[in-house]
Amino acid sequence: MPPARTAKQRKQDTLDRLERDEDVWVATADTSDGEGATPYLVPLSFLWDGSTLLLATPAASPTGRNLRSTGRVRLGIGPTRDVVMIEGTVQTLTATELPDDVGDAFAERTGFDPRGLTSEYLYFRVTPQRVQAWREANELAGRELMREGEWIEESTIRS
Amino acid sequence: MPPARTAKQRKQDTLDRLERDEDVWVATADTSDGEGATPYLVPLSFLWDGSTLLLATPAASPTGRNLRSTGRVRLGIGPTRDVVMIEGTVQTLTATELPDDVGDAFAERTGFDPRGLTSEYLYFRVTPQRVQAWREANELAGRELMREGEWIEESTIRS
Repeated sequence: MPPARTAKQRKQDTLDRLERDEDVWVATADTSDGEGATPYLVPLSFLWDGSTLLLATPAASPTGRNLRSTGRVRLGIGPTRDVVMIEGTVQTLTATELPDDVGDAFAERTGFDPRGLTSEYLYFRVTPQRVQAWREANELAGRELMREGEWIEESTIRS
Repeated sequence: MPPARTAKQRKQDTLDRLERDEDVWVATADTSDGEGATPYLVPLSFLWDGSTLLLATPAASPTGRNLRSTGRVRLGIGPTRDVVMIEGTVQTLTATELPDDVGDAFAERTGFDPRGLTSEYLYFRVTPQRVQAWREANELAGRELMREGEWIEESTIRS
């Protein structure tokens, strides 16, 4: 197992992944069936704008319904031995509400433009509240990089 | 984009992944906070025995609490462009309840033996109820491979 990365390196690697990775695992939860909580999980493409992630999925899909009704999401980026985990709050946007240039940037980044489809898609803007990053067991300490929407000062990360 | 795989090939690729992959994305849901459903997501190692997946995680972790209280899980295996998605029901087992040979097989497969730790771990046996597999958009049709716990006859998969 390679040595644990510094806090500074982890933050840089995390920002690189947000900038360069194409897909994110999107976990949501549904309580509408009355039997308790049902988890949902699906991979989606995303666009990172420096502070939020933009997703798009059919309004009627489980992920679309859950994001809209709970406003909560947990995301996983990267392979399982080099993960970035993000807890975020979610703003729902219709294609009409989305600024044109953002819709264009999303289409260019993902190769997918839901504005041209006949089925109803929604956009979801995820604002990270908590960010963690780790590779193997030796990086579980110090995995917290953002708390309550603020990047933690690198000098204060417990490692 | 390569042509869509046949149903037979998808099932074989799925079984190969269950046999050979090391980790799985584990999505669970929590309703205990009274504010609605909170999704959780974490990668864990697993052991496949031909019909169920065995996981282990601390009893006090969000995933451990959610698996125990809801008995439901959604799993993602593979990279985001070659996924196997599994909805399963969950049986909770203490280290004492787990047969020794199964604990040994888990430790050998994952390189991790929670039976030797002082903190309380639980094992979770996931029985797949629904299995889907797809790579790109052209494989969304025909992605359903198992329904209600039964592999779908290959000749009847809608492709």
